[in-house]
Formats: sequence, structure tokens, C-alpha cells
Amino acid sequence: MTTAGPGGSAEALRRRAAAAPVARLATVDADGRPHLVPCCFAVEDDVAYSVVDHKPKRSARLRRLDNIRAHPEVCLLVDHYEDDWSTLWWVRLDGTARVLADGPEYERAVSLLCAKYAQYRATPPSGAVVAIDITAWRAWSASEL
Amino acid sequence: MTTAGPGGSAEALRRRAAAAPVARLATVDADGRPHLVPCCFAVEDDVAYSVVDHKPKRSARLRRLDNIRAHPEVCLLVDHYEDDWSTLWWVRLDGTARVLADGPEYERAVSLLCAKYAQYRATPPSGAVVAIDITAWRAWSASEL
Repeated sequence: MTTAGPGGSAEALRRRAAAAPVARLATVDADGRPHLVPCCFAVEDDVAYSVVDHKPKRSARLRRLDNIRAHPEVCLLVDHYEDDWSTLWWVRLDGTARVLADGPEYERAVSLLCAKYAQYRATPPSGAVVAIDITAWRAWSASEL
Repeated sequence: MTTAGPGGSAEALRRRAAAAPVARLATVDADGRPHLVPCCFAVEDDVAYSVVDHKPKRSARLRRLDNIRAHPEVCLLVDHYEDDWSTLWWVRLDGTARVLADGPEYERAVSLLCAKYAQYRATPPSGAVVAIDITAWRAWSASEL
């Protein structure tokens, strides 16, 4: 399910993506318009998790969840930018999202996020979890890894 | 058309967004699925421009253009991440996209992109320009600017 570009191994790009601190999540609203938010995330196997925390952007976050309920198909992008364009890379995950409010998978997701982010360990999140069942990984890199 | 969050002036966030080197563009494909690419961009008044250049990700870029022709509504996100989450901010532009192949607005877009990016001055882009007529700016910042 991985497509690598002209440079870089797919596995290496996948590991880089999972280690990145931030991704951008695209959802589609009930009217078919795209919506974007930056998010922290953790990946286990072929599922990516993010969580709604308590920062004051409640309306945007509820909109993200509403969109997922209307259109479960989402896209998550991790990319690297710097002024030297020979170092650019991105990994794009297509998937189907579920909203989790509690249960064992919810607890596992929060545990993975706390393992990756000290900020979550300091203030554990308690909002809804977005679980993305990844259906395709696509990756591109300007240079060999 | 600007919504600021609890911290930060909308104008300051707008200036920060225009100065950022990279954004992420969300489009929707003919089947209603979201698609994401990172892109360089320049903003003039209420139009954001990006350009297809010659880096080897032709299929992804053509897909972006196909999506815009099917669904002109797009979303462009600029965000700032660092480990100190009190510094986070984002600016999200909703808009309607047009694909330009030539003409005065095409030339103006390439000129703006070359003014912003030394990389484009070194190797001027010659691919299609995506022009986004911005219909809404939304911004959020964790802290006062």
C-alpha cells in the first residue's frame, strides 16, 4: 500500500512520518467542502490517532468531528519543509475515520499519544479520539533517504 | 472576513500566514474524497497563488488540478508548530480555485512567487498556477501576538 517517489524507501518515509510531531487532517463537510486542521497524532499498525483536547478552538474541533460523521473518508498529510528544496518529503495517508468517545481503543490511543508527546503526559487529553483506518500510504521524497 | 481566536490580532495572523514558506492545500476529488498536498504560495489582496513546477510528482499535481476542476472549493492551511504549545497558531483560508495556464494574472502570480522564493527566481516555474479567491480567513493563536 505504499508508493514511494523517485527518492527514498517507502519504509523509511513511513517511519519518518510516524515520528513527525504534527500532521494536517483534511475532512469534507456535509456540503462537500474541504476543511483543514493541524493535529498531533500517533500511528500504530495501519491506524492513525489524534485527539480533541481542551485548547480553545472548540468550534473548529467540533466541525472536524461533524465532518467525519458526514464523510468518514479523510486525508492526513505529514510533510517536511526547509529552504533547501532537495530535502523535501511528504507522506500522505488516505483513510476512513471513526470518532471514539471511550472504550479500550480510546484508552490505547490516548496511551500512544501520551507516549509520543510530553505535553499530553503533563495534561492528558480527555476529548474525543479520531481513529483513521489507513487505506493507502503514499510518499514522496526529493532525495534518497 | 477574519475570525481571530482567543489570542492574537487577526491582521497580525494574516501577515504571519502570508510570510510563511509553506501551506497545505486541501481539494476534493470527483468522488468526494479529500486530497492534500504541501505547497509554496504567495498572497496578494484576497487571492492566494501556488504553481505547479517541475519536481517529479507529476501525478499528484495533476490530481490536484483535476480535483479543482471537479470541485473548485478548496481550503489552504498555514500553521505553526513547535514543542511549546503556547506558541501554536494557524490561519485557514477557504476559497474557490481557478487553474491558470497563461495570461496577465498567470504572469503576476509567477512574479509574486519569484519575489517570495529565491528558489523560484533560480528556476522560474512554468506549470499551471492555482489561483484561490479567498472567501474566508479564519485564524487562531494560542497566545497574544
